[in-house]
Amino acid sequence: MKTDMLQILKEAENNQSAALDRLFELLKLKSISTDPCYHEACVATADFLVDDLKVIGFEAERIDSEGKPFIFAEWIIDQKKPTVLFYGHYDVQPVDPIELWESDPFSPYIKQNDKNGDIIIARGAADDKGQLMTFIEACRSIVAVTGELPINVKIILEGEEESGSPSLPAFLHEYGHKLTADIALVCDTNMWDAQTPALITMLRGMVTMEIKVTAADRDLHSGYYGGAARNPLHILTKALSGLHDENGHVLVEGFYDGVEEIEPSQLEQWKALNLTAEKFLNPIGLNSPAGEKNRLILEQIWSRPTCEINGLIGGYTGEGFKTVIPSQATAKLSCRLVPNQDPDKVISAIKAHFKSYLPQDCSIEFILFGANKAIAQRVDTPFIKAASDALKQEWGKDPVVAGCGGSIPIVGDFKEKLGLDSLLIGFGLEDDCIHSPNEKYNLSSFQKGQNSWIRILYAL
Amino acid sequence: MKTDMLQILKEAENNQSAALDRLFELLKLKSISTDPCYHEACVATADFLVDDLKVIGFEAERIDSEGKPFIFAEWIIDQKKPTVLFYGHYDVQPVDPIELWESDPFSPYIKQNDKNGDIIIARGAADDKGQLMTFIEACRSIVAVTGELPINVKIILEGEEESGSPSLPAFLHEYGHKLTADIALVCDTNMWDAQTPALITMLRGMVTMEIKVTAADRDLHSGYYGGAARNPLHILTKALSGLHDENGHVLVEGFYDGVEEIEPSQLEQWKALNLTAEKFLNPIGLNSPAGEKNRLILEQIWSRPTCEINGLIGGYTGEGFKTVIPSQATAKLSCRLVPNQDPDKVISAIKAHFKSYLPQDCSIEFILFGANKAIAQRVDTPFIKAASDALKQEWGKDPVVAGCGGSIPIVGDFKEKLGLDSLLIGFGLEDDCIHSPNEKYNLSSFQKGQNSWIRILYAL
Repeated sequence: MKTDMLQILKEAENNQSAALDRLFELLKLKSISTDPCYHEACVATADFLVDDLKVIGFEAERIDSEGKPFIFAEWIIDQKKPTVLFYGHYDVQPVDPIELWESDPFSPYIKQNDKNGDIIIARGAADDKGQLMTFIEACRSIVAVTGELPINVKIILEGEEESGSPSLPAFLHEYGHKLTADIALVCDTNMWDAQTPALITMLRGMVTMEIKVTAADRDLHSGYYGGAARNPLHILTKALSGLHDENGHVLVEGFYDGVEEIEPSQLEQWKALNLTAEKFLNPIGLNSPAGEKNRLILEQIWSRPTCEINGLIGGYTGEGFKTVIPSQATAKLSCRLVPNQDPDKVISAIKAHFKSYLPQDCSIEFILFGANKAIAQRVDTPFIKAASDALKQEWGKDPVVAGCGGSIPIVGDFKEKLGLDSLLIGFGLEDDCIHSPNEKYNLSSFQKGQNSWIRILYAL
Repeated sequence: MKTDMLQILKEAENNQSAALDRLFELLKLKSISTDPCYHEACVATADFLVDDLKVIGFEAERIDSEGKPFIFAEWIIDQKKPTVLFYGHYDVQPVDPIELWESDPFSPYIKQNDKNGDIIIARGAADDKGQLMTFIEACRSIVAVTGELPINVKIILEGEEESGSPSLPAFLHEYGHKLTADIALVCDTNMWDAQTPALITMLRGMVTMEIKVTAADRDLHSGYYGGAARNPLHILTKALSGLHDENGHVLVEGFYDGVEEIEPSQLEQWKALNLTAEKFLNPIGLNSPAGEKNRLILEQIWSRPTCEINGLIGGYTGEGFKTVIPSQATAKLSCRLVPNQDPDKVISAIKAHFKSYLPQDCSIEFILFGANKAIAQRVDTPFIKAASDALKQEWGKDPVVAGCGGSIPIVGDFKEKLGLDSLLIGFGLEDDCIHSPNEKYNLSSFQKGQNSWIRILYAL
């Protein structure tokens, strides 16, 4: 086994030029799932990946859906050996604002960067084509040396992650039986920093909604009505400002129901990471944390729930001035949830909060956009231990057992619908500009990511 | 004199068909001052009016400016007689949203209306072409019968009222000496109701500003930064909600400096008008007043200052949802001012209020759009007495001595720059839809408005 590993890592190294060629071919495909114009490009991308997986030796098929195709591949070595289910997505974000790109988003190239060394520039370089190819190239190198894989591997790739995975529930319902495994591997997250890998065990959940307050049945002139007529902007700002106290604590009644403190040992580890407010906030031009007082930055972004205004509009917002009292005002609100918060209860609590601010002659409307629970996985499983050891071998240091402030709904689906825990291991970095112009992926992430998966597959 | 009056009123009656033809010609001219495409139409409108005033017998001229032309006309009968300066504006509001008009805005016609009888439909029918023509037609009828006017009359018409009168200060500076008079007559306001004229003696002033809060130097993803990074929407809504207490009282320190209670006798008159919250608010779908508790509706809209949010925008406001923490959030704020409030001090107080809510690592910017003081004229002058008597003769009831919640900056300019008090007498109604689609002017307003001016000119 020892010999195999060295041989496989050597094979992976020799494979880099060809691996990069394949990634570039994949990055040239314009698989923007949110834009119907690129439907054919999405299908072509799926076909490209199916063909490539077959070349390696997988049984692979394209499974069409109401939306973009799924890709399912498997290689069952021995029913008695463990089975992993790898997840990634081949669709990418739109490229707007295109004028801020320094090059064509779909003409990948390598560029030297002072901070990151060689970087791969293209839409999808990191999210998620670069990341998913680390796993596929790892499989290829293993197979090239040993002729097979060390454990059973199933792969599911979707093409609608960037548009909210509308076809996923139906797919899981119909094909869930094919996806049975011992653990899911999800490669769509970041490292702690460019030298330190991370293993994500906590993911915040989320509820999102729009809140619309209506006062008068038409827009009014503030000269005539001002002082007597309700202004929905006043009502909405009062209710919004009542969401938090001056210490960043959420005041919505029942909001914190079920929220628990994290384990003291976990807290100690996070403290040891020494992420100061300055270190976290200075890069974005800030220096004092806005969240709950007396909490670590990492608690604020990983283990504490939030209630955030993401959009607000009402009245005249163009150039100059109009003395209008608008009929309506609208806010978009999201709450990041932590384990044991019930999304439905949070939604009810938020609704009650806003209704309590509503004058009897005004009306309020709530539009819900989706809700999912937070995920917290046990950190003491043999899978995590094995993956952790494998990552340490590759990177020379223990991975950070981290939370993630964002939400990855598939992880909840794997748990709820398939009973599967997930190992969230990715090689992205915060400065990858995913969803933004000039997306990049460090070449070192691409190469050491492959090595990491090789080691993890053997460790599992 | 008695005989003359009856003859003149008879002449005015006989003149109606021709008066309406002239008004329609004027209404066909697309004098939209805010849109550069209609510059020529504005000039043509000015020429039309100059020609018409000359036909009556005025010395009239077009005075070009940096913007739209002014019209100045005068007829000095006898230096020893009183002189009035009439003000109106010939420009009109844009027609958007054009799709809500039931007919071409510049094809005036008469329509029968259940509530108002015959109404004139066109952009500018009321604001201000219909109104200003009541005065011009009054002069025409007097001259037709008597060969001259009973007092000296000067007329100033501007073409930029709807775009903030940018050329007015320079004009008043250069031509102010021509405008000397004993009193200004301004015809750009409403009646109390369709049967009851009004004499406006109080006008609220106004300050308008935009307030922009900047937190991070870029838009942030709420999954990664949410909980730790400042959200300018939270800062702005906190500051905005702090503008008022739960009783509608403005909390900005120093805001009420100088504000006085109105005279008890005035308050009694307003009480007697019995404008209930239901009567005022039901037509717009509301029923409970938003302003300061324990104040009459008429105090809230005429004699009490306000602080109103007129626009608010920040973050993602399109369809669906984006979990963004925006870099910036912007509010537009206006304060209606009452006599003895200093606009500059109010602006400083508002700025201090917002700054007090600003975290040290965020920034704030104020953009000022203009400020003018409130106007309160004495109600016991001989001019007001004379105009009041004249209006009573025409309408059969005393005019309401009213305030006006809106602001008419020219009145302040007349007072400050020319030392002139103004009589604000207009025949518009709240349902005229000025600035909105399907603007109208009651035919009765047009006809009895002319009669009113005939009587007023003789009374003065």
